[in-house]
Amino acid sequence: MKEKYISIKEALEKKKGKVSLRGWVYRERKFKDKVFIVLRDHSGIIQTVIHKDKVSEKEWEQAERILIESSVKLHGELVEDPRAPGGVELRVEKFELVHLAEPFPITKDKSKEYLYDKRHLWLRSRYLTSILKIRSTVFRAIREYFWSKGFYEFHSPSLTPGVAEEGPTLFEVNYFGKKLYLTQTWQLYAEAAIFALEKIFTIAPSFRAERSKTSRHLAEYWHAEVEVAWMNMDELMDLAEEMIKHVIREVLKHHREDLEFLGRDPKDLEKVLKKKWPRITYDEALEILEKKGMKVPWGKDLRTIEEDKLMEDFDTPVFVTHYPKEIMAFYKPRDPKNPKVARCFDLIAPEGYGELIGGSERDENIDELIKALKKAGEKIENYEFYLDTRRYGSIPHSGFGMGVERLISWICKLETIRDAIPFPRTMTRHKP
Amino acid sequence: MKEKYISIKEALEKKKGKVSLRGWVYRERKFKDKVFIVLRDHSGIIQTVIHKDKVSEKEWEQAERILIESSVKLHGELVEDPRAPGGVELRVEKFELVHLAEPFPITKDKSKEYLYDKRHLWLRSRYLTSILKIRSTVFRAIREYFWSKGFYEFHSPSLTPGVAEEGPTLFEVNYFGKKLYLTQTWQLYAEAAIFALEKIFTIAPSFRAERSKTSRHLAEYWHAEVEVAWMNMDELMDLAEEMIKHVIREVLKHHREDLEFLGRDPKDLEKVLKKKWPRITYDEALEILEKKGMKVPWGKDLRTIEEDKLMEDFDTPVFVTHYPKEIMAFYKPRDPKNPKVARCFDLIAPEGYGELIGGSERDENIDELIKALKKAGEKIENYEFYLDTRRYGSIPHSGFGMGVERLISWICKLETIRDAIPFPRTMTRHKP
Repeated sequence: MKEKYISIKEALEKKKGKVSLRGWVYRERKFKDKVFIVLRDHSGIIQTVIHKDKVSEKEWEQAERILIESSVKLHGELVEDPRAPGGVELRVEKFELVHLAEPFPITKDKSKEYLYDKRHLWLRSRYLTSILKIRSTVFRAIREYFWSKGFYEFHSPSLTPGVAEEGPTLFEVNYFGKKLYLTQTWQLYAEAAIFALEKIFTIAPSFRAERSKTSRHLAEYWHAEVEVAWMNMDELMDLAEEMIKHVIREVLKHHREDLEFLGRDPKDLEKVLKKKWPRITYDEALEILEKKGMKVPWGKDLRTIEEDKLMEDFDTPVFVTHYPKEIMAFYKPRDPKNPKVARCFDLIAPEGYGELIGGSERDENIDELIKALKKAGEKIENYEFYLDTRRYGSIPHSGFGMGVERLISWICKLETIRDAIPFPRTMTRHKP
Repeated sequence: MKEKYISIKEALEKKKGKVSLRGWVYRERKFKDKVFIVLRDHSGIIQTVIHKDKVSEKEWEQAERILIESSVKLHGELVEDPRAPGGVELRVEKFELVHLAEPFPITKDKSKEYLYDKRHLWLRSRYLTSILKIRSTVFRAIREYFWSKGFYEFHSPSLTPGVAEEGPTLFEVNYFGKKLYLTQTWQLYAEAAIFALEKIFTIAPSFRAERSKTSRHLAEYWHAEVEVAWMNMDELMDLAEEMIKHVIREVLKHHREDLEFLGRDPKDLEKVLKKKWPRITYDEALEILEKKGMKVPWGKDLRTIEEDKLMEDFDTPVFVTHYPKEIMAFYKPRDPKNPKVARCFDLIAPEGYGELIGGSERDENIDELIKALKKAGEKIENYEFYLDTRRYGSIPHSGFGMGVERLISWICKLETIRDAIPFPRTMTRHKP
């Protein structure tokens, strides 16, 4: 006979009747003749009570010795009880110990670094579990959005020959005695693939060996990227805005409690959904900054401090467009209306979460590309396969890349991006 | 005014009326007073005809000079024509050249290695485009299956401290001066995460520095992995079989033509759906092999040659279970009914496509794990974080890993796994 276990969430909805639950001891309080166990599973927590006179002697001995994070199976009757979290309590009739945990090493007084050392155990905390569930929904929602728009999922290699410009931030791999590098973007490969599939997306690991210890950077992160044939910059910004709004809607639909637990008021996100996100040019951004007492010389990129200052005036993400061509990557084309600027944008999150997305049209013109590559000191022969895309039926197209952990950090209102990924990799952290 | 382009697939369904199409020249035939262009986009191909007297002089000049893979926009009237592929022809009224291609370097007489060198252009071939579309559906279907079963998507790091045993097949990364290794499996991380999320899956790049040049191996491939709390081996095999059957159903639903083009008879796959896949033990496999004249001494792993021989008798994938414990990875538990074998399985594809999935229950018992690790010559301190999962509420659980490109190869009946991924990485191939 196979026992039927239900989840704690289902039990809380059921409210009464006989059920079997299983999970881990989240909290315990022991009295002379009863033990309260708050039981945890992936779906939530529920209060349970074991009365000495309702279980066998052996079961009572085990219940009396229980420690948190032990695994148990509990069989009994659900009873509504307004004092219990969730309003329901399980009166245990049969107590099964699966595994008696050793004393759990994570206690309230532990340092942040200790918690990262014990990340494999800290994952069980309500804090990280809430984030991980939202993370799962974010990935699903991104993909569902693109599938619903007729995109194909496409994959570029993680191991790439690499190009000189990115040298300092590339991780080197010993590939059968040759030097290869870990990918930073799928872009060059994706631009070749749209000639077959036209509308493509991916979410894949991406790597930056940045010697940065900020709360916004990871050495390994998940990069959601799209590349679209025949699309211009304005349409691409529509796509980016709609995609993120879809993600937020899905998170609000499934994770209101998780958000509240994390300290993110769902109303903040609802507000973001209702508005059309502003699109301002780089020039307008400089004007705003100047009015706020921060003068940036034209031609300089916006730094974090300036982005944060700019965003003080906004409560939704903002597209900043038309950055100076000279400081942009070689593939971002000049704007024909104003050749000093490029047809590109950054999408900047509110509340100091920084750049979510960088996107642009891609220069269709092979001569412009070669000129820009030479100016950047690149060897043209490294780019021959890429330049081929402009030799055989070149078309207008655009694409963007989004740091998924940045989006999760903002949605969840996290203090550090390291908690937006299960096992963070940074300059100073590569274990467990 | 924004023009409205429709896809070629939509045009073939529409059959008549004025439309605008865009794409690339797939084939062209030029006559004195007309040019036939077979136009290609991501959705298919359509025959179009440009009559000299129906377009302007400039348009005719461009049409006359057209080369394959040039990009064009064609506006005109759809007419049913039984001689045209798909039964519909576009009579062009306005011809717009987007980009005149240089002579396309891929022609019929090119070697296989040349085609891999020009992979970025070869992607446009109907052969690779068909595979890439099926690949996209395979990824979507795997994820949809797990989401529908209440799994969370979870991500392990690509950069790992690594463990000694796998040394020879690990790729080494220079990580800020430290040695890290590219991941081969998420398993150790996933086993920690099920204590929070219970049912998890991923699809992520995985790396093996195998000095193998077979048609079945890639140095970088996409690894679909699951880990499930409270699940035993029989339930896990059900899950694996249902998941792959779901994938095949989705591929059949969307890609019958692609399959036929690739030489895979959809009926082969339909047959696989109808049957329950056999589950035989390692011992039974040895008996079958012996009857077929291939004697394997008990205790030896099955090699490719033996798997292929075994599969001659089957037209669906087959689960081979209960391999000898001594040759299995340390985490595969002994079968209590027969301690010489482990509670594990391989799922082997028919037609010589080899192992699709390897899976097992995971040993719950920390003493058994330590014993097996020591026997394998491992340093226990490298596994402390993993062993912690058995110290704090250990539970029964199981998991498997599937090479997605193996599945794609079998579904598409490919000659080599290198064509199941856009830009293959093998011992001898790392460009473009």
